[in-house]
Amino acid sequence: MNKVPTEPSAACQVPSNGPFSPARLSLRRVLIDTSPENVAYMHRDCEVYRAEGFKALSKVEIRSNGRSILATLNVVDDENIVACGELGLSKAAFAQMGVVHGHTATVSQAEPPESIGALHRKLDGERLKLDDFRAIVRDIAEHHYSKIELTAFVVATCRDELDREEVYFLTDAMIEVGRRLDWHEHLVVDKHCIGGIPGNRTSMLVVPIVAAHGLLCPKTSSRAITSPAGTADTMEVLANVELPVEQLEEIVRNHRGCIAWGGTANLSPSDDVLISVERPLSLDSPGQMVASILSKKIAAGSNHLVLDIPIGPTAKVRSMPDAQRLRRLFEYVAKRMSLSLDVVITDGRQPIGFGIGPVLEARDVMRVLENDPRAPVDLRQKSLRLAGRLIECDPDVRGGDGFTIARDILDSGRALAKMNDIIQAQGSKSFDHNHPELGALNFEVRAPEAGVVAGFDNLQLARIARFAGAPKVKNAGVDLMCKLGDTVEAGALLYRVHAGFAADLEFARQACSKSTGYTIGRADQVPHVFVEF
Amino acid sequence: MNKVPTEPSAACQVPSNGPFSPARLSLRRVLIDTSPENVAYMHRDCEVYRAEGFKALSKVEIRSNGRSILATLNVVDDENIVACGELGLSKAAFAQMGVVHGHTATVSQAEPPESIGALHRKLDGERLKLDDFRAIVRDIAEHHYSKIELTAFVVATCRDELDREEVYFLTDAMIEVGRRLDWHEHLVVDKHCIGGIPGNRTSMLVVPIVAAHGLLCPKTSSRAITSPAGTADTMEVLANVELPVEQLEEIVRNHRGCIAWGGTANLSPSDDVLISVERPLSLDSPGQMVASILSKKIAAGSNHLVLDIPIGPTAKVRSMPDAQRLRRLFEYVAKRMSLSLDVVITDGRQPIGFGIGPVLEARDVMRVLENDPRAPVDLRQKSLRLAGRLIECDPDVRGGDGFTIARDILDSGRALAKMNDIIQAQGSKSFDHNHPELGALNFEVRAPEAGVVAGFDNLQLARIARFAGAPKVKNAGVDLMCKLGDTVEAGALLYRVHAGFAADLEFARQACSKSTGYTIGRADQVPHVFVEF
Repeated sequence: MNKVPTEPSAACQVPSNGPFSPARLSLRRVLIDTSPENVAYMHRDCEVYRAEGFKALSKVEIRSNGRSILATLNVVDDENIVACGELGLSKAAFAQMGVVHGHTATVSQAEPPESIGALHRKLDGERLKLDDFRAIVRDIAEHHYSKIELTAFVVATCRDELDREEVYFLTDAMIEVGRRLDWHEHLVVDKHCIGGIPGNRTSMLVVPIVAAHGLLCPKTSSRAITSPAGTADTMEVLANVELPVEQLEEIVRNHRGCIAWGGTANLSPSDDVLISVERPLSLDSPGQMVASILSKKIAAGSNHLVLDIPIGPTAKVRSMPDAQRLRRLFEYVAKRMSLSLDVVITDGRQPIGFGIGPVLEARDVMRVLENDPRAPVDLRQKSLRLAGRLIECDPDVRGGDGFTIARDILDSGRALAKMNDIIQAQGSKSFDHNHPELGALNFEVRAPEAGVVAGFDNLQLARIARFAGAPKVKNAGVDLMCKLGDTVEAGALLYRVHAGFAADLEFARQACSKSTGYTIGRADQVPHVFVEF
Repeated sequence: MNKVPTEPSAACQVPSNGPFSPARLSLRRVLIDTSPENVAYMHRDCEVYRAEGFKALSKVEIRSNGRSILATLNVVDDENIVACGELGLSKAAFAQMGVVHGHTATVSQAEPPESIGALHRKLDGERLKLDDFRAIVRDIAEHHYSKIELTAFVVATCRDELDREEVYFLTDAMIEVGRRLDWHEHLVVDKHCIGGIPGNRTSMLVVPIVAAHGLLCPKTSSRAITSPAGTADTMEVLANVELPVEQLEEIVRNHRGCIAWGGTANLSPSDDVLISVERPLSLDSPGQMVASILSKKIAAGSNHLVLDIPIGPTAKVRSMPDAQRLRRLFEYVAKRMSLSLDVVITDGRQPIGFGIGPVLEARDVMRVLENDPRAPVDLRQKSLRLAGRLIECDPDVRGGDGFTIARDILDSGRALAKMNDIIQAQGSKSFDHNHPELGALNFEVRAPEAGVVAGFDNLQLARIARFAGAPKVKNAGVDLMCKLGDTVEAGALLYRVHAGFAADLEFARQACSKSTGYTIGRADQVPHVFVEF
């Protein structure tokens, strides 16, 4: 029952008014950050357009300087913000026009995106074809979809609404609209985790280990969106991560690896747009996850991927059947895309390492690389296992030997040397992991009674670190003192929360008061998770 | 795979900092209309809060004066808009706080709405219970849902995602959160159309006819959202429609009927919020349509409803099986709610009457009431049939006699007298339907060749009228000269478009150039639609 118009009747006569020359307004940069949405500001008494009339519609199209953008219109009654005869644009919108203050622009009702018909067919439960996905993904990448339309697409394709062929179509369409890197080598490896486990910074260890072994591993990562740190945020504590693609290519040629932010490379741009609605909804459906991850990896030029799927009571995947179903979907699409994929199912019952937050996590990573006795054992072991699996894709390595090779590289200091090379090449930052400067404000959370650490809430610990200021405040976060199965006395320190701002500290404290994220109980209450390795 | 947190462990010790006293900012009214969304503006260099940190999250909660609202945060770099130490609020948001400029407020991260767990279960394909719908609808009515969350609910409950029991639950929940009128009479009648047909202003004829017969008919209508005129917009040409509930009740007591805007009565407030995302998506799924319409009618105190479902190639319902399925769903929910419902399936192949737009439609209505020879016959006939069906719910009227009674009331001038009473009671406006003042700017659309009017695109004609300025510009719109089956010469006038502003006229002209909404062809191409009466 969607109101998609029927075919137009083009035969009737409409008088022409000559070439249409709409009235022009003078552009003004309004210093309001409304990203990710473009907002245009028009005075209510604007004489050439009826601001009120526009407002009723969802979007306006603004043309200037040969470019056009879509924006939401806000009607203004204050000449200090925007005067009659002017059109204000929010900061990002103004930047997209590429003009100076005072340049003129025209405004019109935005046409619905071309692919809306395909979106409606999906809403009606139809199966879409590759061309449909291409049209939708192109409109999304070009910011033609409103938040409402984006959400409709995400919800209409969540759960089992996409069959596996459609997930392949979506993945393919997402690659097509972005840049695709080509490393001109037979074997380009990468490692990825589906996310959800705080502190899980194995990439920063896997990359130097496998690069030291000689494999090409150009790792591009995202920044945290709702988590307290992404690999890019943590690497940024040690080195510059915003690298132009040319520099990134040179570093990878010279050092066999990099750990950079993927944003500059414009790989799978539609994914960044989709994430802007998926994350606030906490919606991470299998089809979208597979398309998101594989499109980015393939666009980054990888042809061999080790994928980490953690299972646990508060992980993204909570049962082995769910993990196996997700694994098969990843494998199906990877095969269609000629990507060699090795899925490993790992222990996701608790955070990995001790620190949650960029500086704290960078500290843990560097301690593992330096074979420091304070290094978290779980982070070291998991990284070695993942690196080992990647190393085994080297045709000269026998199945089963990868772990030992990875361990030798780490123990010998070759991984540290490789990491230092990469840091130097990307542009190092001063960071002393022996004396990391943590957020000056802090509070401690202690055990209410003696017992065993019997459960973790990954989501709540991530939320507390986030409230404390991570990742924007690099040295904010949560520093864990005990892990699952540890015996604690009453009053024992469970973790310390660091913040840089008083308001953040209070928000984190309020979150802790609701739930600390720890359960103290008996040893037999510790959840058991079967994992592949 | 939704990240809904597990039960908190409340047993751990978190040090208290005494009562939490967050820093206060001085409220400032920012003259920007961002409705329906609340927006808060904070300077980037605000010393007490990290504006950037908030921005990453979806919403903030602002407390002042014992009230709290949710808002999207925009970061500002211009002290003229908002200074450090101030918190700007968009116009509607400021009004909701009920304070004066300079009153202080605190800001915190907004907690997710309580019903988000239920929403996620629906996204996972589960069936929800009455209490789930009540929790969701309460959060929606109180504006706790973001646009993204609203869209997720609308899409997750569209098509066949709701079974008929769930549609009943949703209807019941929507009634519960609003005001419910009680007329203290045994029989309270109403008439409603599911919409989609331009010019279909039968309510303005049915109400005076049935009220003149003596039935109690308190008609509350909505304003147009994406259509070129709603009943409230059209009635507003003749009379005041924004009436306090007390006045509305008095008018109905004195005159047995009214034609008012439903907004002031706060009937089914969640529906207004849901519509804000359904309309831009053009999503009008059966379950939501049934809940929306029946909740408003029952909240308005009706216990007998005649419902008009038009069918046609560009109507909301396009086939008889779809219409019958929709009818059964309406009937099921109406029965559960003890509402007596009479569904009539009508001809939706083309607009009803000649005018599209408030003034043009008011002209048509008044001509029918005055038995003017220029009155549109289709509007008269359809209104008489609908009024006749309603009159037959009078226990003293024999089945089949309603139409004749309605016609007598109309032909005798009693309907006009009743309408004039209602107009006087609501507060009449000066309107001369014999010489309606139409938008001064206009253009004409003519037939390209001789033939028969063989097809109409209801959606395109509504769009053209909308672009021309209707309903905000009351006398803008489209005035049709020919209807389906009419024979036209080449160059014959098909319709005239009226506008009040030059830019609007141009937008309408551009829309006409793409498609006029008319198909000129052969008599045998006119679509046939079987209708019940």
